[in-house]
Amino acid sequence: MNMETLLSDSIKETPPSFVRGILKAASDPNVISFAGGLPNPATFPKEELSESAKRVVKTYGSLVFQYSVTAGLPQLRQYIADRYNRIFQLSLTPDNVIITTGSQQALDLIGKVFLDRGDGVVVERPTYLAALQAFSMRQPEFYPVELTEEGMDPGQLEEALQNPVKVVYTIPDFQNPTGLTASGGNRERIRGILKSRNVVLVEDDPYGELRFEGERLPYIGAGKLSCSILLGTFSKTVAPGMRTGFLISENRELLHYLSVAKEACDLHTNIFSQYILWDYLENNDLDAHIAKIKTLYQKQAQAMTDAMARYFPAMVRYTKPKGGMFLWVTLPEGVSAMSLFPKALEKGVAFVPGDPFYADRKNVGTMRLNFTNADCATIEEGIRRLGELLKNCTSAR
Amino acid sequence: MNMETLLSDSIKETPPSFVRGILKAASDPNVISFAGGLPNPATFPKEELSESAKRVVKTYGSLVFQYSVTAGLPQLRQYIADRYNRIFQLSLTPDNVIITTGSQQALDLIGKVFLDRGDGVVVERPTYLAALQAFSMRQPEFYPVELTEEGMDPGQLEEALQNPVKVVYTIPDFQNPTGLTASGGNRERIRGILKSRNVVLVEDDPYGELRFEGERLPYIGAGKLSCSILLGTFSKTVAPGMRTGFLISENRELLHYLSVAKEACDLHTNIFSQYILWDYLENNDLDAHIAKIKTLYQKQAQAMTDAMARYFPAMVRYTKPKGGMFLWVTLPEGVSAMSLFPKALEKGVAFVPGDPFYADRKNVGTMRLNFTNADCATIEEGIRRLGELLKNCTSAR
Repeated sequence: MNMETLLSDSIKETPPSFVRGILKAASDPNVISFAGGLPNPATFPKEELSESAKRVVKTYGSLVFQYSVTAGLPQLRQYIADRYNRIFQLSLTPDNVIITTGSQQALDLIGKVFLDRGDGVVVERPTYLAALQAFSMRQPEFYPVELTEEGMDPGQLEEALQNPVKVVYTIPDFQNPTGLTASGGNRERIRGILKSRNVVLVEDDPYGELRFEGERLPYIGAGKLSCSILLGTFSKTVAPGMRTGFLISENRELLHYLSVAKEACDLHTNIFSQYILWDYLENNDLDAHIAKIKTLYQKQAQAMTDAMARYFPAMVRYTKPKGGMFLWVTLPEGVSAMSLFPKALEKGVAFVPGDPFYADRKNVGTMRLNFTNADCATIEEGIRRLGELLKNCTSAR
Repeated sequence: MNMETLLSDSIKETPPSFVRGILKAASDPNVISFAGGLPNPATFPKEELSESAKRVVKTYGSLVFQYSVTAGLPQLRQYIADRYNRIFQLSLTPDNVIITTGSQQALDLIGKVFLDRGDGVVVERPTYLAALQAFSMRQPEFYPVELTEEGMDPGQLEEALQNPVKVVYTIPDFQNPTGLTASGGNRERIRGILKSRNVVLVEDDPYGELRFEGERLPYIGAGKLSCSILLGTFSKTVAPGMRTGFLISENRELLHYLSVAKEACDLHTNIFSQYILWDYLENNDLDAHIAKIKTLYQKQAQAMTDAMARYFPAMVRYTKPKGGMFLWVTLPEGVSAMSLFPKALEKGVAFVPGDPFYADRKNVGTMRLNFTNADCATIEEGIRRLGELLKNCTSAR
């Protein structure tokens, strides 16, 4: 058997996830892991979800176990539409919402619906590694645009749009991996640039609900650009294991094609879990629950940046996220995060080197740290160890 | 906005599912629907699954709601390996199994891993419509091979393999849509033909457990061809709503690439449902449960063929499945199932015209009928109405 000739070009070009690759090393109980993207399991409403599971079987019987419609449970889609209408003054109906098997599936669907080999996708530099993975399956051309403290660089975006671009992909709030959030002014400029173009804007927003301070900002596209898609998920506000995300668009034609693609993917998302989630949301106060998560994560983020201020050499820079789950460290010129990684692991600390977050760069001096999955004392200890290592690296130069 | 230029070629070439398109019409309470592919909801072990849901939350706590590994719950994969080893004398370990979000996802993954535009896929004529859909996303070339009462025509298969074929797709047991099962001799011949070729054999077996009579036959590839993939699911033996299927292969390299593709699809399959299913399987007798399903479905299949013998004109032929969920009707020469469809709907009966099951034919005189989702009296009444219509059609010719 000759495997090489059997494999598709696209799978050969799709990198396995670095994060999943190091999961084993990072799950060693002696390792303090800032590598994963795990929500804090202490926040999962276990009892309430268990209660909802019991109740929906009792109330809806076989329906919760039967095949169901591709777009998802109408009641859950109604809940999502109502929530976004309330928070963002949109005018969505359930027909504007498709439930997806995690936000990850939405990325896969978008790739299938819009991208043929060589089609252009604008991404932030750096961007979410699993978006690069999902889009890679379609062998597109990536056009990375620098992500600044304000958001995507508008000048570079205009330049990138000189190419045959079909999709612009952005994570506006507490971006993965950087933790950065696009400013209100930046959003307006990006919107202005996209308004007259024939491109699809994809706003991926898994973290927007987790804002520690200040008001939520209006989306770039949602409610304002006719050809835009907004992605959301319950993975960070309720629990990720049930793989329930959603996509929202005001464009019915676009939703039609996304739905055809979803049919071919998995027919529909797990309907038992959709019922459970919906029942949970109906019988509990999501905002109160999210408030608790935010209080916890804010403390953890603070613990991490406090420890960095104490233990990191002054030449090391890092973002100070106002929400979300990650922060981003920039090492002094010439220090490679990838070569730091095995040394850190020896000291019992794991992080994700920046490399897999770039469509076009390797051996970078940046890294992503997750702050939501360890208690504050552990975070401090992990950063202390990392600080020691960084001192050695930077003094040896 | 110019949608036409934004859409990918592959989504433009992917037909929406006819079955899903008629779901609304077919779900009218006045319509007797043989159109869907729904298991009988009376067979779902509701109470047991509810009990399992409660127990796994109590026992495993947050783990059942957290992100998990791509390949799926090790205990569930062990259960599957053990079961197939026992029934088919294989020697699988959990590492040979990947849990998928329904069998449908496995088809999507296989398309991604092996097919680029123009690559060849051998399918049965007719074949499962959602397999055509899933593979279409990769814009392959389909090479249909006639499905006989014995299985895939070996001569036509050899001929088809003269083309640049990468994947051979077959449903060996109680095929969807025809209800036909490949004979032991046919399986051996197909195996012999494939043995020396550089192709991937995909055996899709959602119905094999539902054999009303006789012994299960050995697979064509599983345990015998190094480059083969076997698909299975709990959708027909437990419940479909949790979207839990699996793929099995003895080829580790192949599993690696399928796993990378799965990562990019949805990270992993709903882990809460995997725990629930595994707990259900550990605490209940699956074989006893399946025996009950088979008794029910056999009665229903019998009711349908009995009614056909009574009410259908003699020129109408139909298969008499020894298992599964479907049978296949062949109308007299020149009668189009698609033009029969609206007339049947008027009389309050729905079925699926054969057209969407062919990669290369239209306006055919065949149709698929599902017998698992209506009681015997309703089945008889539906077939009686259909018989009336068929008498009018055939006498008018």
